[in-house]
Amino acid sequence: MEKASRNVVILTIGAAFVGIGIGVIIGWFSRVPDPLPSWTSTVENQIKDLDESVIYRYFDNVQASSIRENLQYLSNEPHMATTEGDENLVKHIDALWKTQLDSSEIVSHEILLSFPSEDQENEPNVAEVYDDADQLTFATRTTEEVYNEYMAAPENIVPYYNAYAPAGDVTGQLVYANFGSESDFAFLADQGVELNGSIALTKYGRVGRGARTINGKKYGVAGVLVYSDPQEYALDGDTGYPDDFSLPSSGVQRGSAMSEYGDPSTPQYPSIKSAYRTPTDEITYFPVLPLQPIAYEDAEELIRRLNYNDTLVSEGWSTGLNGGELNVGPGFSDGGKIRLSVNNKLRYVTSQNVIGTIRGSTEPDDWVIYGNHRDSWVYGAVDPSSGTACMLETTAILQELLKYGWRPKRTIIFASWGAEEFGLIGSVEWAQEKEFLLLDRAVAYINVDIAVFANLSFFTRASPLLTTVIKAAAEEVEDPVDSTKSVFNSWMEYYPGPDSDTPYIGKLYSSSDYAYFYNALGITSADLSYRGNASEPRYQISPYPTYHTGYDTFDYMDRFLDPGFLAHETVCKVSGAIMLRLADSLIIPFDVMAMAKFVESQVLVTQNNYDAYFDEAKLRYLQEASDLLKANAMDMVNYIENELDRENVLDIAAVNNRLRRFEKSFIEPLGLPGQINNKHISGSNYGPEDGSFPSIAALLSGVSTASTEVKTTAEKQLAMITYRLLNAASILKMT
Amino acid sequence: MEKASRNVVILTIGAAFVGIGIGVIIGWFSRVPDPLPSWTSTVENQIKDLDESVIYRYFDNVQASSIRENLQYLSNEPHMATTEGDENLVKHIDALWKTQLDSSEIVSHEILLSFPSEDQENEPNVAEVYDDADQLTFATRTTEEVYNEYMAAPENIVPYYNAYAPAGDVTGQLVYANFGSESDFAFLADQGVELNGSIALTKYGRVGRGARTINGKKYGVAGVLVYSDPQEYALDGDTGYPDDFSLPSSGVQRGSAMSEYGDPSTPQYPSIKSAYRTPTDEITYFPVLPLQPIAYEDAEELIRRLNYNDTLVSEGWSTGLNGGELNVGPGFSDGGKIRLSVNNKLRYVTSQNVIGTIRGSTEPDDWVIYGNHRDSWVYGAVDPSSGTACMLETTAILQELLKYGWRPKRTIIFASWGAEEFGLIGSVEWAQEKEFLLLDRAVAYINVDIAVFANLSFFTRASPLLTTVIKAAAEEVEDPVDSTKSVFNSWMEYYPGPDSDTPYIGKLYSSSDYAYFYNALGITSADLSYRGNASEPRYQISPYPTYHTGYDTFDYMDRFLDPGFLAHETVCKVSGAIMLRLADSLIIPFDVMAMAKFVESQVLVTQNNYDAYFDEAKLRYLQEASDLLKANAMDMVNYIENELDRENVLDIAAVNNRLRRFEKSFIEPLGLPGQINNKHISGSNYGPEDGSFPSIAALLSGVSTASTEVKTTAEKQLAMITYRLLNAASILKMT
Repeated sequence: MEKASRNVVILTIGAAFVGIGIGVIIGWFSRVPDPLPSWTSTVENQIKDLDESVIYRYFDNVQASSIRENLQYLSNEPHMATTEGDENLVKHIDALWKTQLDSSEIVSHEILLSFPSEDQENEPNVAEVYDDADQLTFATRTTEEVYNEYMAAPENIVPYYNAYAPAGDVTGQLVYANFGSESDFAFLADQGVELNGSIALTKYGRVGRGARTINGKKYGVAGVLVYSDPQEYALDGDTGYPDDFSLPSSGVQRGSAMSEYGDPSTPQYPSIKSAYRTPTDEITYFPVLPLQPIAYEDAEELIRRLNYNDTLVSEGWSTGLNGGELNVGPGFSDGGKIRLSVNNKLRYVTSQNVIGTIRGSTEPDDWVIYGNHRDSWVYGAVDPSSGTACMLETTAILQELLKYGWRPKRTIIFASWGAEEFGLIGSVEWAQEKEFLLLDRAVAYINVDIAVFANLSFFTRASPLLTTVIKAAAEEVEDPVDSTKSVFNSWMEYYPGPDSDTPYIGKLYSSSDYAYFYNALGITSADLSYRGNASEPRYQISPYPTYHTGYDTFDYMDRFLDPGFLAHETVCKVSGAIMLRLADSLIIPFDVMAMAKFVESQVLVTQNNYDAYFDEAKLRYLQEASDLLKANAMDMVNYIENELDRENVLDIAAVNNRLRRFEKSFIEPLGLPGQINNKHISGSNYGPEDGSFPSIAALLSGVSTASTEVKTTAEKQLAMITYRLLNAASILKMT
Repeated sequence: MEKASRNVVILTIGAAFVGIGIGVIIGWFSRVPDPLPSWTSTVENQIKDLDESVIYRYFDNVQASSIRENLQYLSNEPHMATTEGDENLVKHIDALWKTQLDSSEIVSHEILLSFPSEDQENEPNVAEVYDDADQLTFATRTTEEVYNEYMAAPENIVPYYNAYAPAGDVTGQLVYANFGSESDFAFLADQGVELNGSIALTKYGRVGRGARTINGKKYGVAGVLVYSDPQEYALDGDTGYPDDFSLPSSGVQRGSAMSEYGDPSTPQYPSIKSAYRTPTDEITYFPVLPLQPIAYEDAEELIRRLNYNDTLVSEGWSTGLNGGELNVGPGFSDGGKIRLSVNNKLRYVTSQNVIGTIRGSTEPDDWVIYGNHRDSWVYGAVDPSSGTACMLETTAILQELLKYGWRPKRTIIFASWGAEEFGLIGSVEWAQEKEFLLLDRAVAYINVDIAVFANLSFFTRASPLLTTVIKAAAEEVEDPVDSTKSVFNSWMEYYPGPDSDTPYIGKLYSSSDYAYFYNALGITSADLSYRGNASEPRYQISPYPTYHTGYDTFDYMDRFLDPGFLAHETVCKVSGAIMLRLADSLIIPFDVMAMAKFVESQVLVTQNNYDAYFDEAKLRYLQEASDLLKANAMDMVNYIENELDRENVLDIAAVNNRLRRFEKSFIEPLGLPGQINNKHISGSNYGPEDGSFPSIAALLSGVSTASTEVKTTAEKQLAMITYRLLNAASILKMT
């Protein structure tokens, strides 16, 4: 080829290549991709799982010092339910949450509470000793000694009383009756002590406040005194706060003496304006005798004055007062009588819950609820403000996370409950008001009441369903004492559980605001706190010496329970992590196998303990139902792990709906026999705890020969439990 | 430019263009579009709305002739619950559905039924007249005359009886007691008739079967006879089937005389093997006296023999027998006594439901249930096989639609219920067994029991929520008589409603299998049928003359009720369209405004009728709750129409969850006062129907002075209703 031609060829080929190059670019860019359907970003968001870094960012923000500041503010003045101190905190929390969260509202209920008379001069609650000439020789004090500036506004300290104890003015012989149990009174009666018309002096512990009046009334007792004995409320050698951890001699534990929870005037229904109110004289949950708590310095004086009677000092009865010498009476060694005046008054008042909400991004109808009560008896630094201090730290941090664009999949509801101390009233009335929504929408309820009893170990009472999520949270938080360990390690050490890989998780009681959510609605719940070593004497004092007294102050927490506030910080981290996992995991992190195994253990105990009461076939059907529950739980775990299409929004929802509904299938809507708030066939807390099902245990435990009626009721319960377990098993089935 | 150069330029440019062309093609095709996320087709399916053509394809397939064939097969032999005839149909339907639907299963329950003695020779149910010399002068017949080949296997016709009437052998004076109402007996007693130990002859109508024994027992009556009077069961001049539409002289209406529904041995719980069984002697739902239905030819003979007593013939008492001359007695004109022997026996037997399922494509957990009972008293061509014939036509057509690729969004469950005639037992026990699932998953329950009472007009009893969907279905189906009209037009004509655009929709009773679903679980329900013109005499015979007799045959339907089976075809179309709309609409087609308006009307009646019983404030709160319900319903309608993102699967689910849960919020889990199955605050059917709320009406309607106890119960009910309405309002809120 000649050169010119070659050049032309080269030029032509070059032009063609340049052309191809340009063409490719044109071709590439002129092909506009098919637009993605508009809902793709929506779906991407809907199928997104928990971002673990959110939890670590949360941890990084929790500060002991902030919680300490919160607590100082919260326990600054007495804030008994519905008093000015309480209302101030309502405003404070609502204002905070209005800034921190998406919304906050104050939800009020008109409820029936019980207070000492406002006319303390003429109508105090007091026990007085009159000699045979009717001269007053002694009177009990009515409120605590004020020691320091942490006891601000002492005029607002409520006088010693037990809420709902009926007013009364009774005079009689004093007799010492130990804890006021039925067997304590029986012992006295057996020994020939005339109890009719007597006033019983009893010490706190073992027996409920109101129950001791019921026990005493059976024996003709006319009134009951109760005090905290140093044996239970002080360590050897201690003189008490402000010098040390123990209860000083004028510290008196207040408390409600109602036998049921919720507003006593509206059982089973919320205290809304349209509610029917039971006339107060028809309410059956109140103590049946005048009942009054007194200081142990006054109890000591009374014991000192009582007649000594060797045969009456029952084996096991003892006191830390009067040098350990227990005089039981009846009557005083120098004659005379004791007069008990109780002037409590029932009053309808307005109690407020503060409800703050972070709206869920993709599943706003799924509610994760975090609650803590706000009301105290006096300053309530430990009970409940330690919990509130943590909760407010959590909401403050979530505000930061929201600012950075985070939003939970599910709605998180924060609740500051009112009037818990009177009988969980704020939470019960709110839950009853929202009952139909909660039965569908609630995923879980997390309760932190007293956040810190002591600073040694994490402790929880919880539904078995929360086993894995609580463990996961405890594993990712550092132990506050030893940074080489996790919270899980020390929890395992101090509270070992039945399995080698699971610490002890207690059964939920009815002792805080989770009670109605769990026992009546079957909402999966946990109660979280930091505690001491149950084997050490100081932690056997229950729950801590100044509980419900005027000495439960910020200073007490700061110096004796959690100096440095690291236990608070830890509870705040663990509870936050649990909440975030529940609110933000694609699949609700419920441990269905743990629930199935718990039920299996209850079936086993029922079979072992009560086979004499039931047909063999009926016990076998119970077993079969439990087996089916376990098999279906296992199938569901396998389905979630191996089969679930994690890109199919409705398939994910189908799993979550089952998980959210699961524990609610343990609810018997008609209630367990004789119970209005206990409806959870497996988790309800009443009657003896023998490891079987609550209603079976309540009917048959410790009964030597059951009546036909009791046996029939037990048979009905067994059938009902079997049926509910079959329902529970069926809800887990995916197809 | 010289030519060679020009050529080079042209060549170069040409090459460049060719290059560009090639490049564009390469560029275009080498740009592989971003693949759509794998879940896009899933989501497209999830957000797809009802394809109306499916409904028209369904209509095109419904054939009167097929339904007629179905009916002929189904009513071929007696198929009383749990008899061989019933079991044959169980196998037939299950086998059909196993081919037609995704799956079918037979669900059995061990239930307590009541039957005549199997030893008819020695233990018949009979009334005998003995003269003063104790000679038998007359005995009632025990079963129908057999007329034709449509009464096949007549040996399997169950003898006349009322189920659950207790066995007994009583002898006494016969007295005529009209309908056996309390006022009928009171009238006799007022006139000085000795009722103690008497046998009362009563006619069907007005008073329930068992209720007449309760009324009689109050006056000392020892036994009750009941018969169908030609006045109520025959047209003037008719001789009865097989010649005409009326009841012939040996036709006897059987029926259950139990006062409650569901297996009487397991109230509130399912009859599963683990169930607790109430001992039969403790069951309180049974008639309290021997009770026996007799033929009107025998009733005539008894009336003929009774003493005539002018003053005893109460105004309004009358008969179509004995030439219209009513002898009331007491006693026979020629002396003697009547002896009533009832030999019914309670028996535990196995009843079967057949449950067929079409699994929903995208929302398989949402259940639309379509049910019809299978058991008859004798041949049951009308009751219930006319319904079954339609149901089997529907399932056959759906099989075709499934073959062509259609699948409903939601799961459709077909149910062939057993033992309805004894007290809705099959459906109640199934619903109780699945209760926890149903409370969450059931969207609606559609019942077709007797499909065709007469061939004039569509008729329905339904929850107000179904108003629009029933109207829509009735509008799209052609009237079987006049093709220029729709079913809606003739329905509107014969059953005009209170509004100009809505025909009459009756309140749901407890008369068929929807009862437990609706009254106890709050599952939105409808009962559908074709009926006559209520103003024509022949349709005032209730519900049709041969009801529950041996003459309810295929031939009777074919010749007298629906010749040509076009009414059947119409019911099949309308019920199918309702079901398809419920199962396949993107948004469940519930009319929340109709429900809110219905409640509003109940509030108005309560205010008008019972203001004397309630605080003004309490009635105002009720009104406020109703207003809120209406406002929220309106908001929801607006939200669905204007705001809902129909491409967001979870937003759609949020609406549907609310709609599915809505009517369940009308359930009071503790039951209405004294009721075990009636829990629907607004829809329950018991007590007088005065347009207020059922429990309020039951307590206060027609009561001149209510006792304090009744007033208190009513106050509690008013508060409970207000509370439930607030819950109902809250469930509709979208945020």
